Amino acid sequence: MTDFDYMQEALALAKEAAEMDEVPVGALIVRRGEIIARAKNERELSRLATHHAEIVAIEEACRALGGWRLPESTLYVTLEPCPMCAGAIIHARIERVVFGAHDEKNGAFGGAFDLSQMPNFFRPVIEGGVCEEECRQILSAYFRQKRKK
Amino acid sequence: MTDFDYMQEALALAKEAAEMDEVPVGALIVRRGEIIARAKNERELSRLATHHAEIVAIEEACRALGGWRLPESTLYVTLEPCPMCAGAIIHARIERVVFGAHDEKNGAFGGAFDLSQMPNFFRPVIEGGVCEEECRQILSAYFRQKRKK
Repeated sequence: MTDFDYMQEALALAKEAAEMDEVPVGALIVRRGEIIARAKNERELSRLATHHAEIVAIEEACRALGGWRLPESTLYVTLEPCPMCAGAIIHARIERVVFGAHDEKNGAFGGAFDLSQMPNFFRPVIEGGVCEEECRQILSAYFRQKRKK
Repeated sequence: MTDFDYMQEALALAKEAAEMDEVPVGALIVRRGEIIARAKNERELSRLATHHAEIVAIEEACRALGGWRLPESTLYVTLEPCPMCAGAIIHARIERVVFGAHDEKNGAFGGAFDLSQMPNFFRPVIEGGVCEEECRQILSAYFRQKRKK
């Protein structure tokens, strides 16, 4: 499986989120070639401010591995992580982050600012823009629909 | 109850965390004079990278109010929030944050940088340094103990 393949899986999760009237973001965590967590944004369903796709995925992966560190892991997510999620990624020592759509307003891995370059923090390797167009379109379609309601 | 009184409650939670061999941080959320959530850092116990005191408190408060927004709320925490927790505070629209010890290395409300001043984000009012010496001492004692082990 390539980064493209994993991002397609994350996109499928984002589509599930859209169907549930959630901001459509999907995430998965891969370790040694195995998907150890799949999640979608579920802020409305859970009614928790914290339940972005990345947080749900990180908690699932911590449960799968039995500890709060997630070494040798890559997190795939359809949208550039916000500060909360970027902070959680750093706490969990996730080595690599691949995201789809850049987010200039809220993104914390190069968009609004870059948490991966802070001198005192663990520094994951970041790659943005994988399947960017598809990831962006699913978000635009969701917000267009929302404005019509 | 004053800020000092609430911070003393948060300090009691931090002491409970220390007794459980967790990094001693305590947090509570107050709304209209009522404490709606109390939490301590439980990263080791829960084995979740996300379970800092503030995140646990925010989720408890969301459950108490039945939604992901926490209007008219103040969060008290013994240590300046990290980027993850500061991001969660902003997502939950917590209006005011009172913290104890400043954290120049990891703090995201004025320490390492200041998320409360980002142009595109919700901006909570921040007050740091309440019971600072006591909040700092409980952390120093914990880390001193840890190094001896």
